[in-house]
Amino acid sequence: MYRELFNDPQNASEKIHVNGELHPDVRVGMRQVNLTNGERVVLYDTTGVYTEPGYEADTQRGIPKMREAWIAACAAALPEGEFHTQMWYARRGIVTPEMEYAAIRENAGLSPGDRGYITPQQVCESIAGGRAILPANRKHPETEPMVIGPEYLVKINANIGNSALGSSIEEEVEKALWAIKWGADTVMDLSTGRNIHRTREAILRNVPVPIGTVPMYQALEKVKGAVEDMTWEVYRDTLVEQCEQGVDYFTIHAGLLREHVPLAQKRVTGIVSRGGSIMAKWMAHHGRESFLYEHFDEICEIMARYDVALSLGDGLRPGCIADANDAAQFGELKTLGELCRRAWAHDVQVIIEGPGHVPMDRIRENMDKQIEWCQGAPFYTLGPLVSDIGAGYDHITSAIGAAMIGWFGTAMLCYVTTKEHLALPNRDDVREGVVTYKLAAHAADIAKGHPAAIARDLAMSRARYDFRWLDQFNLSLDPERARRMHREMVKENADFCAMCGPHFCAMRITKSIK
Amino acid sequence: MYRELFNDPQNASEKIHVNGELHPDVRVGMRQVNLTNGERVVLYDTTGVYTEPGYEADTQRGIPKMREAWIAACAAALPEGEFHTQMWYARRGIVTPEMEYAAIRENAGLSPGDRGYITPQQVCESIAGGRAILPANRKHPETEPMVIGPEYLVKINANIGNSALGSSIEEEVEKALWAIKWGADTVMDLSTGRNIHRTREAILRNVPVPIGTVPMYQALEKVKGAVEDMTWEVYRDTLVEQCEQGVDYFTIHAGLLREHVPLAQKRVTGIVSRGGSIMAKWMAHHGRESFLYEHFDEICEIMARYDVALSLGDGLRPGCIADANDAAQFGELKTLGELCRRAWAHDVQVIIEGPGHVPMDRIRENMDKQIEWCQGAPFYTLGPLVSDIGAGYDHITSAIGAAMIGWFGTAMLCYVTTKEHLALPNRDDVREGVVTYKLAAHAADIAKGHPAAIARDLAMSRARYDFRWLDQFNLSLDPERARRMHREMVKENADFCAMCGPHFCAMRITKSIK
Repeated sequence: MYRELFNDPQNASEKIHVNGELHPDVRVGMRQVNLTNGERVVLYDTTGVYTEPGYEADTQRGIPKMREAWIAACAAALPEGEFHTQMWYARRGIVTPEMEYAAIRENAGLSPGDRGYITPQQVCESIAGGRAILPANRKHPETEPMVIGPEYLVKINANIGNSALGSSIEEEVEKALWAIKWGADTVMDLSTGRNIHRTREAILRNVPVPIGTVPMYQALEKVKGAVEDMTWEVYRDTLVEQCEQGVDYFTIHAGLLREHVPLAQKRVTGIVSRGGSIMAKWMAHHGRESFLYEHFDEICEIMARYDVALSLGDGLRPGCIADANDAAQFGELKTLGELCRRAWAHDVQVIIEGPGHVPMDRIRENMDKQIEWCQGAPFYTLGPLVSDIGAGYDHITSAIGAAMIGWFGTAMLCYVTTKEHLALPNRDDVREGVVTYKLAAHAADIAKGHPAAIARDLAMSRARYDFRWLDQFNLSLDPERARRMHREMVKENADFCAMCGPHFCAMRITKSIK
Repeated sequence: MYRELFNDPQNASEKIHVNGELHPDVRVGMRQVNLTNGERVVLYDTTGVYTEPGYEADTQRGIPKMREAWIAACAAALPEGEFHTQMWYARRGIVTPEMEYAAIRENAGLSPGDRGYITPQQVCESIAGGRAILPANRKHPETEPMVIGPEYLVKINANIGNSALGSSIEEEVEKALWAIKWGADTVMDLSTGRNIHRTREAILRNVPVPIGTVPMYQALEKVKGAVEDMTWEVYRDTLVEQCEQGVDYFTIHAGLLREHVPLAQKRVTGIVSRGGSIMAKWMAHHGRESFLYEHFDEICEIMARYDVALSLGDGLRPGCIADANDAAQFGELKTLGELCRRAWAHDVQVIIEGPGHVPMDRIRENMDKQIEWCQGAPFYTLGPLVSDIGAGYDHITSAIGAAMIGWFGTAMLCYVTTKEHLALPNRDDVREGVVTYKLAAHAADIAKGHPAAIARDLAMSRARYDFRWLDQFNLSLDPERARRMHREMVKENADFCAMCGPHFCAMRITKSIK
């Protein structure tokens, strides 16, 4: 049933593959757009097996377990029960198949020798130095390896997940697949409603990108939503359950300490992170320091056993312009820097979460402080939204901030949908959100000078000047939408643009100048 | 028929008025949002008479001629046939009713003594210095005065207009009204199809904001689209025709010189400005310098007789990332600076048009050069778009650049719709484009520290924290859309957010912390 999501017979692109050299069984899929003038443009691809010719999806069976053999080979090379993370290998200079895969993937559209061409060794070194992560739980062999770090293409995450107010398992899997169709690099399942375990299972077995979660949500469901009944043991067992299931990265709000809570209570919108508010309430009720902070090393030990990456949650991200860059936010960020170092001691890979709502003139400070305090660990931000009054348009409010902070060096942008602050996104909202964030990430790549990103825009602009409409559709981020909008007004291929008509087409007139 | 466009019975806002002190017959309409907690938020309003209680629209009669008495009083004070522009009066320190009106309008949400409070004298001084314009043709008494300059709220323009491929007069008037409903500060009628004169007439008589045009479009229609047949006389007569009709500002591509054309021909997308390409072709065909440049003083004399403001067109704006900030673009910009000085010598008010397609890292250079070369005349940019591959989403591609350049000091942002590069916008596209640009302009106002803009966000955030949903809707840029999205999921007023459900509402949990 899901395969038709990926079906677009009018799109003149095909799946191609590039093989590894260090690891010959590495085989990386990319999308090649075949232009009508004979040129080819190769693009990074997040759709996995769903766009392999002839692939028949079977959601009961799940998608192929691409990494199964690599994981098995790793296990076979070690004493029984021993396991190491990508960071452990990287620190020893060992280039894993996953690292080579991610490096090849980054090179979509580049050739060896091109500026920005990524070697497997570079991926290895940046993971070793904590400047990048490769989220790949050994229990999630379905995931296609990818790398997140400021040296690489800016990535985007799409949040899905039900709430007590609605949505089914099928809908959530469909949203996740819809997200990767439009280019989501990772998907977070933030379900807080019914069937949390089964929803996540269906997503993990059917979606070929790293999956993130906030384990606190399920832990809280286990204590029937009563924050005061939460215990370290319930939380720990939930971590293990999700590690076993194959989640690739966890958001853990371990940096929110007791001392930060009074700072947040002075705010206009208090605490707007769900995980953060739960921990703040727990600490206030029990009069104790955060169990996430106190058990942090134990958490890292669990995650290291599976190579689940740690996304240090910003429980105190500002929820409005008035609260941006305040003492609560930056107090927590400093603690995240400390926890980052502690996690690295366990060879756990780390990214740092960031805001939130921040006016344009105060975005740079977020990036600067994150770099200073978190030793170059990748930054992963939610927007930021540059105003509070965009309800119904907050994919745009946030894309403005996201593009800017991506340019400044943020490694991954968590999308915000048009329904933010209002309701849960549906399938159409997921598409709009993902494409908007692909645009923000791509604009950041261009501003950073990424040659493949710039080359795609150049190919698009040449197609535009040549009136090669089909090529324009296929090179754009949402070929279906571009095609539909144009075809509503102009039926055939015209050598002028529908906005201007034949007499007023500037490009047509320019070409007629001798 | 048009009044229902403005009808939203669920919106708890009302029209209020503030009277002038220097000119007691100045009466400025604003929108006051009445919050459910008894507070009031006053907002800048572009809807004019259409939101006056009980106003019955009659498109045959047109809207009231608010400025008629002021224009008559001016004429009565001068020798017969003499007339002066707002800049002429400003240079003599004379505060016109229009200046006082515009100053009061800027103060929506501010009180005397507030930082950023604008006095009529400040408006007068900034117009005198060329740092702001007040576009108000004496033949357009329907327009409500407003001021455009970097010291003031960032303004937005919405383009409408038919092409040879479609649209009717009624549709264009409806689009123009729809644009002001959502907050467009000015409207440009870029019609190039049938009934150009009559379409413009209907817009001028029914829309209460300044109207801009590109007179070359109609001039070219007069010579049946044959660029080589264009003459100074045809163009001049078109200028006079449109001055007489009441157009408030003209885009004139007088800075594109013969020497620039070879620079543009080397580009990836050549010339993408319609007016620019027409002039380039004319110069190449006739082997002569631009008649707009050669007759520039005569153009200024005509415009000064009506007080039509001059928007110096950027005929060489880059049409793609690869062409950004190139010699063609900046060569023309330097010429625009020269023409700006010449226009000021005629007391003609001037704004300078800017790009286009520019990557984020090269936006600042546009603003810096414009300030340096154009002596502080207001900048008026189209986007800029920060990538070329956003077809179908180019309102967003361009809003990213627009918000940034607005923050840097651009005075007015010309919107780009979702259909850019693909087709003409319809009514829904106009709404989406205008609201997106209001958001970009507002984000720029916030980044510049405008206290009323910041206060609106604060009121919104307080409403959010208090779960005052109706207030959130009414304070957002598109109350109808915000309300609809929320109500689809949650029927009644809830003390939690529909994204999270009751157990996981962070703000609700925060409030429960003692």
